[in-house]
Amino acid sequence: MRAYDIIYKKRMGEELTPAEIAFLIDGFVTGAVPDYQMSAFAMAICLQGMTARETADLTMAMARSGDIIDLSAIRGRKVDKHSTGGVGDKVSLVLVPLVAACGAPVAKMSGRGLGHTGGTLDKLESVPGMRIERTSDEFIEQVNRIGCAVVGQSGNLVPADKRLYALRDVTATVDSIPLIASSIMSKKIAGGADAIVLDVKTGSGAFMKTLDDAFRLAQAMVDIGRETGREVAAFVSEMDQPLGFAVGNALEVAEAIETLRGFGPKDLEDVCLALGSQMLRLAGVAPDAETARKMLTRALRNGAGLNKLIELVEAQGGDPSYIRQPVKLPRAPKVVPLLAAASGYVQSIEALEIGVAAMMLGAGRETKESVLDLSVGVVLRKKVGDQVEEGEALADLHVGDDSRLAEVKQRLLAAYTIGAPEPPAHPLIYGLVTEAGIERYA
Amino acid sequence: MRAYDIIYKKRMGEELTPAEIAFLIDGFVTGAVPDYQMSAFAMAICLQGMTARETADLTMAMARSGDIIDLSAIRGRKVDKHSTGGVGDKVSLVLVPLVAACGAPVAKMSGRGLGHTGGTLDKLESVPGMRIERTSDEFIEQVNRIGCAVVGQSGNLVPADKRLYALRDVTATVDSIPLIASSIMSKKIAGGADAIVLDVKTGSGAFMKTLDDAFRLAQAMVDIGRETGREVAAFVSEMDQPLGFAVGNALEVAEAIETLRGFGPKDLEDVCLALGSQMLRLAGVAPDAETARKMLTRALRNGAGLNKLIELVEAQGGDPSYIRQPVKLPRAPKVVPLLAAASGYVQSIEALEIGVAAMMLGAGRETKESVLDLSVGVVLRKKVGDQVEEGEALADLHVGDDSRLAEVKQRLLAAYTIGAPEPPAHPLIYGLVTEAGIERYA
Repeated sequence: MRAYDIIYKKRMGEELTPAEIAFLIDGFVTGAVPDYQMSAFAMAICLQGMTARETADLTMAMARSGDIIDLSAIRGRKVDKHSTGGVGDKVSLVLVPLVAACGAPVAKMSGRGLGHTGGTLDKLESVPGMRIERTSDEFIEQVNRIGCAVVGQSGNLVPADKRLYALRDVTATVDSIPLIASSIMSKKIAGGADAIVLDVKTGSGAFMKTLDDAFRLAQAMVDIGRETGREVAAFVSEMDQPLGFAVGNALEVAEAIETLRGFGPKDLEDVCLALGSQMLRLAGVAPDAETARKMLTRALRNGAGLNKLIELVEAQGGDPSYIRQPVKLPRAPKVVPLLAAASGYVQSIEALEIGVAAMMLGAGRETKESVLDLSVGVVLRKKVGDQVEEGEALADLHVGDDSRLAEVKQRLLAAYTIGAPEPPAHPLIYGLVTEAGIERYA
Repeated sequence: MRAYDIIYKKRMGEELTPAEIAFLIDGFVTGAVPDYQMSAFAMAICLQGMTARETADLTMAMARSGDIIDLSAIRGRKVDKHSTGGVGDKVSLVLVPLVAACGAPVAKMSGRGLGHTGGTLDKLESVPGMRIERTSDEFIEQVNRIGCAVVGQSGNLVPADKRLYALRDVTATVDSIPLIASSIMSKKIAGGADAIVLDVKTGSGAFMKTLDDAFRLAQAMVDIGRETGREVAAFVSEMDQPLGFAVGNALEVAEAIETLRGFGPKDLEDVCLALGSQMLRLAGVAPDAETARKMLTRALRNGAGLNKLIELVEAQGGDPSYIRQPVKLPRAPKVVPLLAAASGYVQSIEALEIGVAAMMLGAGRETKESVLDLSVGVVLRKKVGDQVEEGEALADLHVGDDSRLAEVKQRLLAAYTIGAPEPPAHPLIYGLVTEAGIERYA
């Protein structure tokens, strides 16, 4: 077998065999297949596509390139969740305890943030004492004991994806549905998930610019699940603005706590209930999504979810008083309002730009070495559809180091589009793709 | 400007600007654009194509990556010729003196053979004393004095093409019309040609497997010529078998001499007359192709072409008695017949395989370091359409080192397809593409 022939075959639009795909991925990881062959192959995939079977084979070849976590010692079906690029996406902070409170085990491995996207681990470290490094045994023991755990990735997970992603990032081969789908799914499969709930974002700030492409990506991942024996439910939801109001580590933890108290932003609660109900269904603890939704709503109202978050924090060495009294969380020395430069309705908010602005304030890492300020960030006061007067506050900036404040303000103002007409109401969630088919909500 | 954006633009099928193309090629040569970006770009070109304007810009960007030879000190319009991959292609040996004898200056820079393709320089060195290294001044002086010269490439010609070709060769991006066309034309333009006559081969052994693709490549090169101010005439001809009978250095020189005497194989003479008449037309020494053909035929019949070859050899230090008495050329110690294993008509002869067999006998280089045996090779006795009896000789093998003889014979027998039906007559030349349009002969 030769890399050349496999690249040529894909260039000609033919379907590759599982052995051919494994040959390229294995060779890429060992170095036998050099970068310049892999980038040509990636470009051929971008332009010729892959069948569902090929995409599943690519996923498994990547998953097998490193460790595959064995979660079989955890009782019950392990359901993982993933969102494709969120700004202000604190869904995991709410869902992990809420779903666990309803009886589904949640063994969550999470990452640190880089660039404009926040990381769940960083957010959790707003709570003093929280330890996110656990041995595999501790991790499993904790999930069996209290129903959930959130830890950092350990071991050598999906090295093929790390290398391939770095290469795609510099060869204009990022936004290909089979490549994105296999990248996401290989990590979830290597993480040991039995089933996966996905939230595919669409809109100007997302990879998938159009609704059709977002549904295609959702379908591709459901197909991978079917081919590899993992049930998948994939939502398609809007990313025309950040989810909730808060963007920034401690600010998002506070908002997640509010949500678990039952007083969260409606859009955030809606997404948590939608994703959570599929998680409960796939975990087999609810017979259907409606029943699951009722269970989740009850756990929000009666405080079971919040209590589970307190248990989680305690189990991982954190100080639970910070969850009970969120005012104790790190707070920025200054809060500066961002004033509207025009009157009208908010037409849209570039979520990506809000994320970059928060990063510039210190909430995110510009490089791997950046030190975070967990207290800083942006809290939106006006969202899409809200009316605003010139001079009124659009957002509050929670500021520590204010050396780039002027630039941040300019960026945030540019992220808001304000205009005369009342914008039409957007659905928050456009639909759901499962093995049963596509359900469009709008 | 970023390489990423340019690759992405081509991936999306958009037309690149001259500046964008130059940025990538210049960066590739300096190392600022790494191989893995260039291979992704090459794959995007393979699948999305290039407009005539882009292909011309790519050609000029490559030509400018190194030296461009200045032939302006040579009187008259300098017409170069190029054939896309020939086995037994001794056309240059015939054409250079023949065209010069008719009054058009021929300043030929040629290469050494590698693999199954022979090099004109190697062939000429069958004549003792021939020197192919000349200074630029000597080269120009000789063309002005006797009308022609054949020298080795000097200087740093088209380094971008050398690097890009090596990369394409390992990333399955060789057979793309804009990439092939720009590779060929950049070398001819860097070589200082005012006008170019091309012979695009088609058939099983050629890059262009189909007639349509061969015409497309021919058209692409004519278009490059129009965009860059060099008139181009491109023939499309068959490569279903080697041209003439001889494959091997001294054997081909002998056949070229026979052809200049007027007793050459008909297919070889036909191709020489066709290409030569376009060369004379483009050089402006004949008003049209018909007149040019008559001039060439006269120079064949009256020995003017042969005399010009003798002048050429003398001018470059060679012993002209070898041209007058070709029996003096290097001769292999043994001539071994290849006997037909079946009776019937010769249906086809894989030219490539004949070339490889000759190389294995020592006529070509397997690596750059291989030492040639100028005397060895293959002389076909049966060509397509000929009838043959089992046990009759298909070819003569001129053998020195016979260590691989058995393997060579097997390969040659496999190259011949012999069958019952009389094969339909193929045209040798399918057509001609010029700025005036496409002329199809068949």
